[in-house]
Amino acid sequence: MREGAAMAAGDGAARVRVGILGATGTVGQKMIRLLQRHPWFDIAEVGASERSAGSSLADLWTPDGLGPRDPGVDDLVMKSLDEPWTSPLLLSALPSSVAGPLESKLASRGHLVVSNASAHRMDPDAPLIVADVNPDHLSVLDGPAHKNGGILTNPNCAVAGLVTALAPLHRAFTLERAVVTTFQAISGAGRPGPSAAALVENVLPFIPGEEIKFTTEPQRILGTLEDGAIQPAPFQIGATATRVPVLHGHLVSVSAAFADTPTVNQASDALLGFQSAVGAPLPTAPQSPIHLFEEDDRPQPRLDRDLGDGMTVSVGRLRACEALDLKFLVLSHNLIRGAAGAAILNAELCYVRGRIPTLAPA
Amino acid sequence: MREGAAMAAGDGAARVRVGILGATGTVGQKMIRLLQRHPWFDIAEVGASERSAGSSLADLWTPDGLGPRDPGVDDLVMKSLDEPWTSPLLLSALPSSVAGPLESKLASRGHLVVSNASAHRMDPDAPLIVADVNPDHLSVLDGPAHKNGGILTNPNCAVAGLVTALAPLHRAFTLERAVVTTFQAISGAGRPGPSAAALVENVLPFIPGEEIKFTTEPQRILGTLEDGAIQPAPFQIGATATRVPVLHGHLVSVSAAFADTPTVNQASDALLGFQSAVGAPLPTAPQSPIHLFEEDDRPQPRLDRDLGDGMTVSVGRLRACEALDLKFLVLSHNLIRGAAGAAILNAELCYVRGRIPTLAPA
Amino acid sequence: MREGAAMAAGDGAARVRVGILGATGTVGQKMIRLLQRHPWFDIAEVGASERSAGSSLADLWTPDGLGPRDPGVDDLVMKSLDEPWTSPLLLSALPSSVAGPLESKLASRGHLVVSNASAHRMDPDAPLIVADVNPDHLSVLDGPAHKNGGILTNPNCAVAGLVTALAPLHRAFTLERAVVTTFQAISGAGRPGPSAAALVENVLPFIPGEEIKFTTEPQRILGTLEDGAIQPAPFQIGATATRVPVLHGHLVSVSAAFADTPTVNQASDALLGFQSAVGAPLPTAPQSPIHLFEEDDRPQPRLDRDLGDGMTVSVGRLRACEALDLKFLVLSHNLIRGAAGAAILNAELCYVRGRIPTLAPA
Amino acid sequence: MREGAAMAAGDGAARVRVGILGATGTVGQKMIRLLQRHPWFDIAEVGASERSAGSSLADLWTPDGLGPRDPGVDDLVMKSLDEPWTSPLLLSALPSSVAGPLESKLASRGHLVVSNASAHRMDPDAPLIVADVNPDHLSVLDGPAHKNGGILTNPNCAVAGLVTALAPLHRAFTLERAVVTTFQAISGAGRPGPSAAALVENVLPFIPGEEIKFTTEPQRILGTLEDGAIQPAPFQIGATATRVPVLHGHLVSVSAAFADTPTVNQASDALLGFQSAVGAPLPTAPQSPIHLFEEDDRPQPRLDRDLGDGMTVSVGRLRACEALDLKFLVLSHNLIRGAAGAAILNAELCYVRGRIPTLAPA
Repeated sequence: MREGAAMAAGDGAARVRVGILGATGTVGQKMIRLLQRHPWFDIAEVGASERSAGSSLADLWTPDGLGPRDPGVDDLVMKSLDEPWTSPLLLSALPSSVAGPLESKLASRGHLVVSNASAHRMDPDAPLIVADVNPDHLSVLDGPAHKNGGILTNPNCAVAGLVTALAPLHRAFTLERAVVTTFQAISGAGRPGPSAAALVENVLPFIPGEEIKFTTEPQRILGTLEDGAIQPAPFQIGATATRVPVLHGHLVSVSAAFADTPTVNQASDALLGFQSAVGAPLPTAPQSPIHLFEEDDRPQPRLDRDLGDGMTVSVGRLRACEALDLKFLVLSHNLIRGAAGAAILNAELCYVRGRIPTLAPA
Repeated sequence: MREGAAMAAGDGAARVRVGILGATGTVGQKMIRLLQRHPWFDIAEVGASERSAGSSLADLWTPDGLGPRDPGVDDLVMKSLDEPWTSPLLLSALPSSVAGPLESKLASRGHLVVSNASAHRMDPDAPLIVADVNPDHLSVLDGPAHKNGGILTNPNCAVAGLVTALAPLHRAFTLERAVVTTFQAISGAGRPGPSAAALVENVLPFIPGEEIKFTTEPQRILGTLEDGAIQPAPFQIGATATRVPVLHGHLVSVSAAFADTPTVNQASDALLGFQSAVGAPLPTAPQSPIHLFEEDDRPQPRLDRDLGDGMTVSVGRLRACEALDLKFLVLSHNLIRGAAGAAILNAELCYVRGRIPTLAPA
Repeated sequence: MREGAAMAAGDGAARVRVGILGATGTVGQKMIRLLQRHPWFDIAEVGASERSAGSSLADLWTPDGLGPRDPGVDDLVMKSLDEPWTSPLLLSALPSSVAGPLESKLASRGHLVVSNASAHRMDPDAPLIVADVNPDHLSVLDGPAHKNGGILTNPNCAVAGLVTALAPLHRAFTLERAVVTTFQAISGAGRPGPSAAALVENVLPFIPGEEIKFTTEPQRILGTLEDGAIQPAPFQIGATATRVPVLHGHLVSVSAAFADTPTVNQASDALLGFQSAVGAPLPTAPQSPIHLFEEDDRPQPRLDRDLGDGMTVSVGRLRACEALDLKFLVLSHNLIRGAAGAAILNAELCYVRGRIPTLAPA
Repeated sequence: MREGAAMAAGDGAARVRVGILGATGTVGQKMIRLLQRHPWFDIAEVGASERSAGSSLADLWTPDGLGPRDPGVDDLVMKSLDEPWTSPLLLSALPSSVAGPLESKLASRGHLVVSNASAHRMDPDAPLIVADVNPDHLSVLDGPAHKNGGILTNPNCAVAGLVTALAPLHRAFTLERAVVTTFQAISGAGRPGPSAAALVENVLPFIPGEEIKFTTEPQRILGTLEDGAIQPAPFQIGATATRVPVLHGHLVSVSAAFADTPTVNQASDALLGFQSAVGAPLPTAPQSPIHLFEEDDRPQPRLDRDLGDGMTVSVGRLRACEALDLKFLVLSHNLIRGAAGAAILNAELCYVRGRIPTLAPA
């Protein structure tokens, strides 16, 4: 995967310095793992809250099961978020409360902020992008609000998989409504997340603030560009979000109705035919954005979340629904396809589209 | 609960001898626990497959976490299923493949078979009853096919809770369609059930043969009696059934649309106003068939499955659905409200309605 | 159990007002559940940190799965720990850091503080008591340091079960050394306890500060009274303490060597012959302090923790050890036999021994 | 790792055809994953019970989470175990009951059988080898019982890690006795293994036939070669074996006493200084057979089982024991270091020592 992509970028292309905001959280740590041998990007700066400033990543590290870290990365010294950043590309894994004003400030200083936070996902001038699905929404950044900098966001970790699976179906058959129920993994809750006392041998039927994102974010991602602005798609999604005792991998049960009701075979063809809309190989893109299981009992979180190095969205149990048109299940790795990998893929999209800013000397 | 019920039956009323078919399985064992101090019924016979015939219950027992067994029960000697049974009331916890022909034969011999098996649930002359919901369907047994004996069934363990919650909503607002996703507990799979290797840190997205029951069984239970036959209700339910690492308690996520769209408050009033349709106290009936949680994060399987000694159906998170009309969650104890307790409640209904047959001497 | 005990105390005996320190934690909440229908004691006061003062128990409650609470208890208003307490008997479920100075102050004011905290367990004038095992250590409170008040402690939640199983073996065969490895439950860690992210599909091989208690506390509990002071027993116990994904019930694997090496049969006889040393029925005492399993695969935490309403200590797999003399497993409910129930049993011991102080009016 | 090893073997060395007995079980499947790109060995034959004969591996496959399989391997057609085998090297992952007579027969026909089964582990002429620890025991195969063929075994999956950790300590300080308690993973039980109903939120305190292996196998592995026979080491190990809700990775708690009592530092030095006794690089050998953690809370099964691609044994919490001399914890991946990887490492040892037989044409 990476070799081909590296060739696409060309050996002569300049490497890009990247800063990571919120480098000590689960998503920030995963970004570091995914970036440490990246063909285009170098981790140049890392930062988090005031408390950690001045420590090295190695000092702050607690075992997280997210994979090994390279020695060079371990020596990076944490900055305070308020310090000046010098990298043109900033990846943000900040909590939304912090992300809101800070990302805006950094964008106004000319940084391209590729953010996993929810703060700006519905901002008219900050495109909400799943690179395989709606890369052309990047042109929202062409507007007058941006000289060089800007904010680019990826969706909620469970929406990421869902909207990828819905994209080819919506484009072929026009989604009207969908009912979804999620089985979300523990790592989606960040640190420390739910206690073992709460979640062992149990399901938590509520995730604060989560369900509304299933209604609004897919409308925007699958919306249309009109005069440089996004018109949300007019379908309605109603969601129930739960937490289950699974470490990684958000599973979503979907029932959907379409304007042009497809047969199961037609829907299957649409899913199998889906290809990334980027049109160029990206290092973090999986060979296939969607894998359609024919086995009855798949996808399963523990068995299938790592497909395509965690970037492939699994769809399974595609069948007719007695109440709407189609039923199916969607699985995606919440930390990779749903967060760290999604942001990096968006950054790679910016790279191949020539949108990494040149930062004026401070 | 039981004291009041015992009074209703009267001290002078004759106790009924009960036989349990399939006494060694999870549901059969739970029936034994629930019956061993019953105010009306005495466990007189127990039976299972040929292999266990002649052994005492104590000999066959493996620890099951279903509660203590009384000494008198431990001494019961297992019959072969083929032997003659002498109890007028037979509770069946047989696997469906065995239940089909055997229950028919026993009914034709004059026994009232109250069955948890799925074999006869859609038979025109075997009513499918949730005692609190559709007790009057018992009159199906008045037809010419029955002299004394007959077969009475209760629904699938996950349907039992769902249909109880849907009943007051359907009656008030006329259900048109519903999309449901289940989180089903391990004990619903019987023995040995899924392996730990399959289910630890995972969700199994498929339960063979399960989903169609959500479409057909509620139509029948909430159907209407016309000329002694059941006309199924014309609504459509589409289900996705999954297995989660929970021991007991099936959780169901529901989105539903109605002919007369209710507000959340109207739906809440309907649920709160629901009372058993039996009209007489039954020993196994909970004080309230439905408990409506107002807390955001309830019901939870581990915390709430034992409400009303496992016979109360919990409903929570009642709110508007963006895609249909209403969203909510339903939880019920799969072994009690969904199986053993459901069958016993149906037997108690037969008792107060005078339908326990007098068995002619063999 | 309780009926007999109530008779022993006599209908005419005065009820005792009890205050609970640390009423909002896991152990405090469990004390409330165990005390709310107690034949001798009335919950008169409850208190915890400053933050909760003035709220009712109902206001502060979060679902904890520890059982239902009586309405009368719900209305109790939390005191600040610094306020004057008026109950002669105080049960302490405080964290040790807070318990140290506060329990001393309350004892000096004439209260009998029956504490679950570790702060005073090794104090020469605060007996460390497992009521069934060493009730006579209560006479340590006769010393000049106490007018009326005093502090009485129970051991660590995992030591409680272990020392009960070791008591009859030590008395019969003189324990010399033991190696123990624990499998401790989540609820033993209090709130919030370990995160699900840390404990799902894992074992945590370290519990800070825990292992030393296995060395020191059994020495004291099984020590001898000489001139009103406890001489620790001279055996050596080396422990490894771990946390496993179990909700309640601490399992301990034990290998032990004795001065008079017993056969397995002799050890079995000693365990089976063990009876509470109190010599009077106590409401919270189980019918049998020790249950010896003969089945190979018992005790198991989930199946056996509730034996004797959580007050019976289960022993199983008693067999010869190739390296020392005997091997066996011990299981006890960490919140009941290991904490809340242990403290209440100690309070009941004080009651039948006439040691509840009369508190002078403030 | 593999590159260096391949160089050691030399580009000109002939590749060895390998047959896998018991190819459909958990260990057999793991062997296939580890061998499918092996620098010296080619999977030439696969076989299992009569039932699977004639099917391809792909036909029989169920998802097992053990990693991807190469297409070439998928096409291999299963033999019946009774058919003639043509590969000089046979890796056996058979159940012990089948392994006993079959492995003997195949050895007598001139095959070198490298077995993971327990059937021949204590046979005088079948060496029990952990390649890093006692490779010289291979000379047992020089005896008159073997012309070309023979049986070479690896230890029980939990003993494998334990004995690796004990080896440097025993050699430096002479082990006298040890008490061990295991926390064994689900995959160690093969298929289907314990049910979820048995193991969720629980610990199973008994594994049939397991504990005696901790007494006998380490004695043999750490025994001495005298006149071509193994004299078992005279230490005594007493074990308690349990099953915990962990997927892979056996954790063992150890307390040990030595003839020459080491300090913790001396023991630490011995562990850190341990190197494989093979004296040549093997493709499956980890860079370091033992990793000694200094962190208090390690090793943990889920975080550390994959160290060294599952071939490194983790030791942690090394400290003084109050009852014996030292306490520590050992973790190893039960399917790799404890089974499939152990057998392959033994096969590689045979390869570099020139012990792969030349099989006469049938």
